Amino acid sequence: MTGLVTLGEAMAVVAASEPGPLAPGASARLSFAGAEATVAIGVRRLGHPAAWIGRVGADAAGRMIVGGLRAEGVDVFHVRTETAVPTGLMLRERRTADRTRSAYYRRGLAGSRLAPEDVDEELVATARLLHITGITPALGSTARDAVRHAVDVARRAGVTVSVDVNYRSLLWSKDDAAAELGFLVRQADLVFAGPEEASLLVGEAPPERTAHALTALGPRQAIVKLGAEGALAVVDGVALAQPPVAVTVVDPIGAGDAFVAGFLAAYLDGAGPTERLRTAATCGSFAVSVQGDFEGLPRRDELGLLTGDDVIR
Amino acid sequence: MTGLVTLGEAMAVVAASEPGPLAPGASARLSFAGAEATVAIGVRRLGHPAAWIGRVGADAAGRMIVGGLRAEGVDVFHVRTETAVPTGLMLRERRTADRTRSAYYRRGLAGSRLAPEDVDEELVATARLLHITGITPALGSTARDAVRHAVDVARRAGVTVSVDVNYRSLLWSKDDAAAELGFLVRQADLVFAGPEEASLLVGEAPPERTAHALTALGPRQAIVKLGAEGALAVVDGVALAQPPVAVTVVDPIGAGDAFVAGFLAAYLDGAGPTERLRTAATCGSFAVSVQGDFEGLPRRDELGLLTGDDVIR
Amino acid sequence: MTGLVTLGEAMAVVAASEPGPLAPGASARLSFAGAEATVAIGVRRLGHPAAWIGRVGADAAGRMIVGGLRAEGVDVFHVRTETAVPTGLMLRERRTADRTRSAYYRRGLAGSRLAPEDVDEELVATARLLHITGITPALGSTARDAVRHAVDVARRAGVTVSVDVNYRSLLWSKDDAAAELGFLVRQADLVFAGPEEASLLVGEAPPERTAHALTALGPRQAIVKLGAEGALAVVDGVALAQPPVAVTVVDPIGAGDAFVAGFLAAYLDGAGPTERLRTAATCGSFAVSVQGDFEGLPRRDELGLLTGDDVIR
Amino acid sequence: MTGLVTLGEAMAVVAASEPGPLAPGASARLSFAGAEATVAIGVRRLGHPAAWIGRVGADAAGRMIVGGLRAEGVDVFHVRTETAVPTGLMLRERRTADRTRSAYYRRGLAGSRLAPEDVDEELVATARLLHITGITPALGSTARDAVRHAVDVARRAGVTVSVDVNYRSLLWSKDDAAAELGFLVRQADLVFAGPEEASLLVGEAPPERTAHALTALGPRQAIVKLGAEGALAVVDGVALAQPPVAVTVVDPIGAGDAFVAGFLAAYLDGAGPTERLRTAATCGSFAVSVQGDFEGLPRRDELGLLTGDDVIR
Amino acid sequence: MTGLVTLGEAMAVVAASEPGPLAPGASARLSFAGAEATVAIGVRRLGHPAAWIGRVGADAAGRMIVGGLRAEGVDVFHVRTETAVPTGLMLRERRTADRTRSAYYRRGLAGSRLAPEDVDEELVATARLLHITGITPALGSTARDAVRHAVDVARRAGVTVSVDVNYRSLLWSKDDAAAELGFLVRQADLVFAGPEEASLLVGEAPPERTAHALTALGPRQAIVKLGAEGALAVVDGVALAQPPVAVTVVDPIGAGDAFVAGFLAAYLDGAGPTERLRTAATCGSFAVSVQGDFEGLPRRDELGLLTGDDVIR
Amino acid sequence: MTGLVTLGEAMAVVAASEPGPLAPGASARLSFAGAEATVAIGVRRLGHPAAWIGRVGADAAGRMIVGGLRAEGVDVFHVRTETAVPTGLMLRERRTADRTRSAYYRRGLAGSRLAPEDVDEELVATARLLHITGITPALGSTARDAVRHAVDVARRAGVTVSVDVNYRSLLWSKDDAAAELGFLVRQADLVFAGPEEASLLVGEAPPERTAHALTALGPRQAIVKLGAEGALAVVDGVALAQPPVAVTVVDPIGAGDAFVAGFLAAYLDGAGPTERLRTAATCGSFAVSVQGDFEGLPRRDELGLLTGDDVIR
Repeated sequence: MTGLVTLGEAMAVVAASEPGPLAPGASARLSFAGAEATVAIGVRRLGHPAAWIGRVGADAAGRMIVGGLRAEGVDVFHVRTETAVPTGLMLRERRTADRTRSAYYRRGLAGSRLAPEDVDEELVATARLLHITGITPALGSTARDAVRHAVDVARRAGVTVSVDVNYRSLLWSKDDAAAELGFLVRQADLVFAGPEEASLLVGEAPPERTAHALTALGPRQAIVKLGAEGALAVVDGVALAQPPVAVTVVDPIGAGDAFVAGFLAAYLDGAGPTERLRTAATCGSFAVSVQGDFEGLPRRDELGLLTGDDVIR
Repeated sequence: MTGLVTLGEAMAVVAASEPGPLAPGASARLSFAGAEATVAIGVRRLGHPAAWIGRVGADAAGRMIVGGLRAEGVDVFHVRTETAVPTGLMLRERRTADRTRSAYYRRGLAGSRLAPEDVDEELVATARLLHITGITPALGSTARDAVRHAVDVARRAGVTVSVDVNYRSLLWSKDDAAAELGFLVRQADLVFAGPEEASLLVGEAPPERTAHALTALGPRQAIVKLGAEGALAVVDGVALAQPPVAVTVVDPIGAGDAFVAGFLAAYLDGAGPTERLRTAATCGSFAVSVQGDFEGLPRRDELGLLTGDDVIR
Repeated sequence: MTGLVTLGEAMAVVAASEPGPLAPGASARLSFAGAEATVAIGVRRLGHPAAWIGRVGADAAGRMIVGGLRAEGVDVFHVRTETAVPTGLMLRERRTADRTRSAYYRRGLAGSRLAPEDVDEELVATARLLHITGITPALGSTARDAVRHAVDVARRAGVTVSVDVNYRSLLWSKDDAAAELGFLVRQADLVFAGPEEASLLVGEAPPERTAHALTALGPRQAIVKLGAEGALAVVDGVALAQPPVAVTVVDPIGAGDAFVAGFLAAYLDGAGPTERLRTAATCGSFAVSVQGDFEGLPRRDELGLLTGDDVIR
Repeated sequence: MTGLVTLGEAMAVVAASEPGPLAPGASARLSFAGAEATVAIGVRRLGHPAAWIGRVGADAAGRMIVGGLRAEGVDVFHVRTETAVPTGLMLRERRTADRTRSAYYRRGLAGSRLAPEDVDEELVATARLLHITGITPALGSTARDAVRHAVDVARRAGVTVSVDVNYRSLLWSKDDAAAELGFLVRQADLVFAGPEEASLLVGEAPPERTAHALTALGPRQAIVKLGAEGALAVVDGVALAQPPVAVTVVDPIGAGDAFVAGFLAAYLDGAGPTERLRTAATCGSFAVSVQGDFEGLPRRDELGLLTGDDVIR
Repeated sequence: MTGLVTLGEAMAVVAASEPGPLAPGASARLSFAGAEATVAIGVRRLGHPAAWIGRVGADAAGRMIVGGLRAEGVDVFHVRTETAVPTGLMLRERRTADRTRSAYYRRGLAGSRLAPEDVDEELVATARLLHITGITPALGSTARDAVRHAVDVARRAGVTVSVDVNYRSLLWSKDDAAAELGFLVRQADLVFAGPEEASLLVGEAPPERTAHALTALGPRQAIVKLGAEGALAVVDGVALAQPPVAVTVVDPIGAGDAFVAGFLAAYLDGAGPTERLRTAATCGSFAVSVQGDFEGLPRRDELGLLTGDDVIR
Repeated sequence: MTGLVTLGEAMAVVAASEPGPLAPGASARLSFAGAEATVAIGVRRLGHPAAWIGRVGADAAGRMIVGGLRAEGVDVFHVRTETAVPTGLMLRERRTADRTRSAYYRRGLAGSRLAPEDVDEELVATARLLHITGITPALGSTARDAVRHAVDVARRAGVTVSVDVNYRSLLWSKDDAAAELGFLVRQADLVFAGPEEASLLVGEAPPERTAHALTALGPRQAIVKLGAEGALAVVDGVALAQPPVAVTVVDPIGAGDAFVAGFLAAYLDGAGPTERLRTAATCGSFAVSVQGDFEGLPRRDELGLLTGDDVIR
């Protein structure tokens, strides 16, 4: 039985190696990214079977993504290969040591062609957890329908549904997002959101009020991600604050997805809310201590490394 | 007075640094490419004023392209910046030391939005040479119209017209290409083509027959590029063979455009056909001795370097 | 049903990035190597299910190896993790552009602890092909017994047995090797050897005589690998010569294993002897055109790339 | 009309890539540097036409400098090329992550040969601003005369004169510097100095007293650069303090020149003193967030990036 | 006369260049390490003759180590080359920016074969200082005997003996270590230890109490290294605290050995206890500001660099 | 007793890592070079004691040179450190894969200040061989006098004198060079020259005639270096031709000096003329197979590597 199933878009990432404006001759690092793929990898590294559903192109980028997921042990059996359009790509300029600016090549490309027929019903119905993000329904109408279909299958089968709001302003308007994301969150058991994202659904409020308001929409677990300030969760009506885990930051991207992965893996472990949050925060810190979105995620035997006394010998 | 004016598309290039299948963590080199931009740079390095007309996105890739051309002294006064779509990009896998495979992100993007209004009539009419390639009209109908318009302006002003056939099978069918390229070649004074490309216009034949057949369409100078075998030209009815100039190959891409640049620069110098071909072949060899499409192109004082006795001291 | 099963040792590789004597501050490239692992990857890239059996340490090198094989889609279900000793490692100095010198850290380490109990009998008995090399029995008595056991299981189940002689003079004496390898080759259906290796078993002779002599020991297919001169095979009594496939050499290591992978994959395809040899030679050339032992191996849709006219567009 | 004209020396920079003592085989990054060139680039990136006057050698370093300035859009029409001596160069050892030590190759080389005849009088007289530094007059008597001549032309034409004291103890004595710099500052409208530099002219005092004392020499705007503590300015008799803008430091070199560029660009914008200082501090922080002296300087649309909430999407 | 003699093991180091889990294709930096070799280099850079005794393999790693020490001016006249086994090696994964995890290849290899006959009695007897660490006796019985022999020779000749406890839990048990290290410390004039290490010998206590307790065993100088908190020493009965010297940390490994080198060099200078500690702390900070264990160590003329006002010009 | 003593200039080398025109952001490799230093290293690697006399600056480049020579075991006891001027430097642009162009920073700098007092008479008089090149006397009058003095001391002591003509047209005129080099060659026992260099002394002629003519000036051994064509020698009146040893070329610089080192080392071995030439050619090939001038030089146990069958295992 699969622990976690997720579906979404994964793109090639071309990230400038050094801070500064792009110039001819500059070097870059190739990898891939995708919020759902990162969550699948994170959950898998912590020991739970995980499957990722999506579409890639019949090209080097697509092979890099599928090979990368397979290296992690993520089930890619249901990934489809598009022959007509390439895999999406993002070009990241590191404008300064701390600030990146990206150009996206994704509209109409392979990942956005996700469709309901990609959702293997048995895979979803026999999983313990379905995780979706607010990015996927913004990719297009077939992708949106794929997400709805997956949620529908999961709910009918009694599978726990997790939603990370992940609002992307480049992809759709606040109104469209609020409508669709509200629809999805109301069917979810867990919801993750940043403060601004949450305000789309429940208006602006301090984090704890926000988390309570999210649970009022339906989910029994609502987690407000506060970035460098940690997180605030309401689980079964009880509010918990999680401070961040200190670490030297190498690449700030991917922290939020790592946080979700840690929380969900601990949930699948059967750990209590405090432990879920602590694992989540630890995963977030691991993610930012390494270049790339998913590369830094911890394996189970590494979770104690950041808070250990020193180097492991 | 500008020596050469050209118009077309330039794209960011992300080229894998090492041969092999792309994998997460691999490194790449960033630069830009575009047949017409390469020709403009090559002509400029050899001492003639050159202008490039095109569109880029309002992004890091677009700034890299414009800055790169400006560094070379190419006139970019008529480049437009698109705010709605990004600059095109190509991702090059170096599958082996000798073979690359590319994915293109260009359809509908900034470069393909070139349009007749981008063609500054005075710039073209006062140039000595207009150079176009068969890539630009394949990008879309407005780009095709821009090329036609530029050729029209040039001919009315008595400006020499150069066409590099440059057939790209990914962009249009042979039939469409043959029709449009035939139309353009008939108005040209110089035409460059590989053997296969030429066969679109004049059928298959040995290089010398091909060159003669191309001149029969109108141009007084027809040059058949034979890659590692050199080139065969018919100039004012006389056939000339040009052997390649020996060099260690570092990156085979860009040789054809460098060849054209060398030929056109020597033409602008007032050099005779033999010297034009020799300069062309020398430029082609310089191009392949350096990574990148345009980076290796020679300045005038470097032309003798490849055939010199040894290191310059 | 698995196409190919193989068993052996895989080690981390630390290969100096630049030619020259090692010096503090020099850079190196990390990867992994192992003749059998390379064959499994090569067969898998050409479309046949493949499984690799071996032991790795509970360390970063072991995780790199298992993840690397998994990325390729090789079945690593039967890989065991040793907690008491580290994964083997080899340090490669590139003394010149063409010559490497390696130090080995393998004696008593994880890979050498392979034992008969690692050989999953059902996996072997249901495969179409078992491939072994002369390296594994040289690692120690339990590894030797594992190989014998695998061959025994395969033969009882009617599974084709392939042996690559791969004599390693650092690991055992010529006499010990000749005895054990002779024992294995006599039970094989296919045998691969270099001229010197073959002489251990059948004495010195020209390649064709050598190949015939090898078939006289039992195998119906004997292939003598001649490096830069190609290969000479005797299949079902018929001798065939295979010239090498031209390519720019980047890293000469791994050619022999790639050759075997190509031959075996074509054999699994049901291709005839000529095609097997051609695929073998193509794979050998791909391997040397890329850094690393296995990284350059071709996928099925790439086999024509080296002999194609030019860059794929 | 040019916004800013400046004149001075630019040198090639060879900066060790990694901290530590130089050793054979170490890698370095090539670029160029020069206080005045950095100011010209910074002002140009913020939207004002800028010209740089200087001399380079007829060598690769000289071409790199001119091409680099041209890439930025800086007017290099009046740059002269010396054929008899090479372009200056500095070799930077990064002794630790925070401390660099440089060897200079500049005495008698191209940049130091700047002379009054290089100062195009029309260019200076029609600019809005002339910027000079205390480095140029220290390079030799012809360079000193060039600076005096430029200031003279500017003052006669009513062009605003800016002086950055920039005392370099390796180039001249305190006494010589105090005499010449005092002469220049008395003719300036704006003066920039560090506390120690200012003490050459007005004695030691706290920053605000120092700034007032500098204005007493003549300039209506005096800015004391305090490095990591920000800056203190007196503009039209009013003192203003500017705190630093927080940023992760990658390379501390170039901050002071970036600060000047920001101040002068805002002055050319017509912004008030507070805005001038804020832009100056922002530019200083951009400069240190990227390797190289000028590479990190912001364009106008990037000024808000450092203080923005997060990554631009 | 040699200032310092030391003996021990040096190993090749393969350290991943970037943080993150090892993956095929990752890059690494080659160097060497060894607590005693680092101390010898540190003392030599500060101006005192130093000799290192040890064994290396007849391989590239061994040559790298000997060449590296020779480059520093360390006397390697008594280094022996083992032909039967390779030089030891450690593979360092930088799991995050701050945490490394290493696999060791050292058991039975060249360095561990150190034996009493390697200890040149005249070299030791004529030195001013013998330095040993707790690592060497843990490598095996001959290495332990070599250390005992060296200490014996030194004491009989009146040479000052320094011991760094350096307990390595992977190599021996606490009980074995406590017995041998206690034996050595009792014969020492100086002893260095971390708090945990010291507790093996004198039980747990606050640093100052620990230092006093160590002197009670025999040494007149006992220094408790407190890492990022500095150090606490008791010298001739007087307790002194040393705060750390601020620096940007690039690679935390090697700080302890650098600290010892600084202390011993100042002791050889004839400096007083306060100066010894300050030099020690400065050396520790230099070490962590550069990649590698020994590369960052300061020369005498660099000692003021970290606390200087700014860049040296 | 020292085998070889040599004296001359060594400079830091900054060599662009990739072919192409220098551009901001390009990477370079740091090392050092000097014809005499390369010969000393080459002779030392082949087992003979060697000493180098010269001057370096009190800077990072000087420390790199001295440390580099010390790492090789070259005696640097008589190297002097100049405090007033920096170490010389050369900046190498790799214009194409095969052609480099260098800018030199050497006039008046440390290396050129070599003077007669640097020549330790006892060192020279007790050596077996003094090697000088035509570069050193071109550096200035004190350097010229140092060379003359060294030759004088050697001849009076009966030490064999070797001269490599090494004419550098940037440093002096043909006439000046012919006079001084002729003076030196007449006192030499061995002379090395390229065909063009030799023509300065004996006029133009085919290689064998040239070699005979050189011996007519005095030396009993005259070797004409023919680059990629090998070499032609006349030893004791007998002419011998040496073909080149095949190798993949990585960096063509340093071949001539490596050739000399090999010849001289074999001469010191007592090997006959044929063996001297073979060792010389082998060393030349090693040098060009590795980046840098001296880095690739072989140790004695590596001499057979290039002609061996394959990789050493």
